[in-house]
Amino acid sequence: MQTFEKICNNFGVIKNHKTEMNSQRPVTIKDIAKKFKCSPSTVSRALNDHHLINEDTRKNIQEYAQKVGYQRNLVSLSLLNKKTASLGVIVPNISSYQESAMIDGLHSVLQPLGYTLNICVTNEQYILETEYVEKLLSNRVEGIFLSVSQETYDAGHYEHLENVIKRKVPLIFIDREYEGFETSRVTIDDYFGAFAAIEHLVLGGRKRIAHLKGPNGLTVSEQRFRGYIDCLKKYNLPIDEDLIINTNFRVESSIVPTTRLFDLPNPPDAIFGVNDQVAIGAMKVIRERGLQIPKDVAVIGFDNSPISPYIFPSLTSVARPGRRIGTEASRLFLNYLNASEDEFGVERIVLPSELIIRESSLNF
Amino acid sequence: MQTFEKICNNFGVIKNHKTEMNSQRPVTIKDIAKKFKCSPSTVSRALNDHHLINEDTRKNIQEYAQKVGYQRNLVSLSLLNKKTASLGVIVPNISSYQESAMIDGLHSVLQPLGYTLNICVTNEQYILETEYVEKLLSNRVEGIFLSVSQETYDAGHYEHLENVIKRKVPLIFIDREYEGFETSRVTIDDYFGAFAAIEHLVLGGRKRIAHLKGPNGLTVSEQRFRGYIDCLKKYNLPIDEDLIINTNFRVESSIVPTTRLFDLPNPPDAIFGVNDQVAIGAMKVIRERGLQIPKDVAVIGFDNSPISPYIFPSLTSVARPGRRIGTEASRLFLNYLNASEDEFGVERIVLPSELIIRESSLNF
Repeated sequence: MQTFEKICNNFGVIKNHKTEMNSQRPVTIKDIAKKFKCSPSTVSRALNDHHLINEDTRKNIQEYAQKVGYQRNLVSLSLLNKKTASLGVIVPNISSYQESAMIDGLHSVLQPLGYTLNICVTNEQYILETEYVEKLLSNRVEGIFLSVSQETYDAGHYEHLENVIKRKVPLIFIDREYEGFETSRVTIDDYFGAFAAIEHLVLGGRKRIAHLKGPNGLTVSEQRFRGYIDCLKKYNLPIDEDLIINTNFRVESSIVPTTRLFDLPNPPDAIFGVNDQVAIGAMKVIRERGLQIPKDVAVIGFDNSPISPYIFPSLTSVARPGRRIGTEASRLFLNYLNASEDEFGVERIVLPSELIIRESSLNF
Repeated sequence: MQTFEKICNNFGVIKNHKTEMNSQRPVTIKDIAKKFKCSPSTVSRALNDHHLINEDTRKNIQEYAQKVGYQRNLVSLSLLNKKTASLGVIVPNISSYQESAMIDGLHSVLQPLGYTLNICVTNEQYILETEYVEKLLSNRVEGIFLSVSQETYDAGHYEHLENVIKRKVPLIFIDREYEGFETSRVTIDDYFGAFAAIEHLVLGGRKRIAHLKGPNGLTVSEQRFRGYIDCLKKYNLPIDEDLIINTNFRVESSIVPTTRLFDLPNPPDAIFGVNDQVAIGAMKVIRERGLQIPKDVAVIGFDNSPISPYIFPSLTSVARPGRRIGTEASRLFLNYLNASEDEFGVERIVLPSELIIRESSLNF
């Protein structure tokens, strides 16, 4: 858990120190607004160094806030005021390291500022996504972070999202987005990570690179698959359909596909898994065939899950900055709050993925 | 995702088949109540085979429901009625396989019945637990599943929980509980699993068994630690403080402790990790020392995470039925709904943990 001061530093919020002027009740933004005969939102902007605020006003308010010991720590204030603000987080599932890292990133910034998070899991279903959006709105959340469910994406539904915008509730896509929909978002460049993984294998002299693909139609599977295909094309390597087999992301789902790959008359010399789980399953099959990793077969996963450096051999993987999705999305949300409607544009942040090379793909 | 029929079977709800009598609008419980001139709750009880319902009434209502094609699938009904019921789930974190399995268990039973889940993460903080409880109540959830945060537990606070009971909202502890507090719960016997793990090592001839312990004070750490200690005592093995070192559950937190263990003049011949992550970290250190697993050092983890059978060597671990906590807790909640206030007692379900023996602890 970060301290409030660290978060202030991260987000350009001024630090407020306790002074000797502490009274019984903590000073609120409203008290400061009364003193300056301005609106609480002006005070909030001044304290956040907002660029539209008059320089003198900013300085005066900040100095006064410091003098009276104004603390922006809403969690402790909330204990006295008995209220805090709620935010909604809608994700397709919470079973992987990715989602928990993302939610951890949101928590790390927003909880110390007094927000509580309402986490909703859609299991990739459009109908549940709609219901959760509706319930969050009726519970008056102050913002919604949404990772679009596959069903919603495939069906092209977005009326429920237009409803959020109409209600002037900030909506921010996290990780999974609707390309054409006008709202801010933070995503990761999976295509690039997959491309880099395959390029590393090709440059290491691997000729028959298999891909344990994710389920068809899922954006995340297709992006990684495109990176694989495009890189093979770049290096004029043939695309062999026998070397592309589907899995469902789970470790056990790669056993039969990998066995099939090594039953081929011309088996692969490298395997690119759609995630680390699938790559770990493949490694077991390879070992049981008496083949060596990476000498006979190189293996690369995706996600850079915490154990990937520790298993044997350590697993080359593509790191996705999941936690940073959460912190960047929080920043976008805070920007919304500090901007007036007409001045705030849609921001699109694409975070890079990064190939982390370990033993499983080296050439000895 | 289970089908509705499977869930009905699991929970003794009658199966309802579509018949030719389907009209435009799906038949609701209210329609059936009107037909029988009884209350909707009587219909609900009849459909749930409640023991307080008159046998003839039950039979008549069930037959009629089947005839008119009554479907208890509230999710699809909700699309027409534009409302579903909400439940709250409060957990200390969602970063481990355990929590996601538990939540998956709740989803699997409750979502098909028309419930949406509001998931709240306390990060082990009492103050956040209180806020979440309050918000859930003010959002009128129909029940709360709570895994008590460590801070709440340590401080002995439970006024916020009494408030839930006072409001007559069903409260069910999941995984972590307050022993003395009168409400239903589903927990896992961690002590037994730890004891079984150590016994397996002792009977395999291991004499110096180290424990990579979880953080002090956490119930889950202490239960596993007690199992370790009590089993050593049972077999009259000395308890050596040098062999007990703390970790923080993360894979990287076991590296320094394990290194220290193998720098001892008399290093261990077995390691019992507080979870699989910690055990996997220890395995890396053991390998790098040129020692063999399990020949020189046996290793056992805890949680039976999905990859534990696939890593090399495959990891012996204690399985905790996390998903079953969710399904059993759902059943307790549904029991609440079907019982009147005075007839329903507190139910305590303790699920067994189970040692799964794999390569890392065998004697060759």
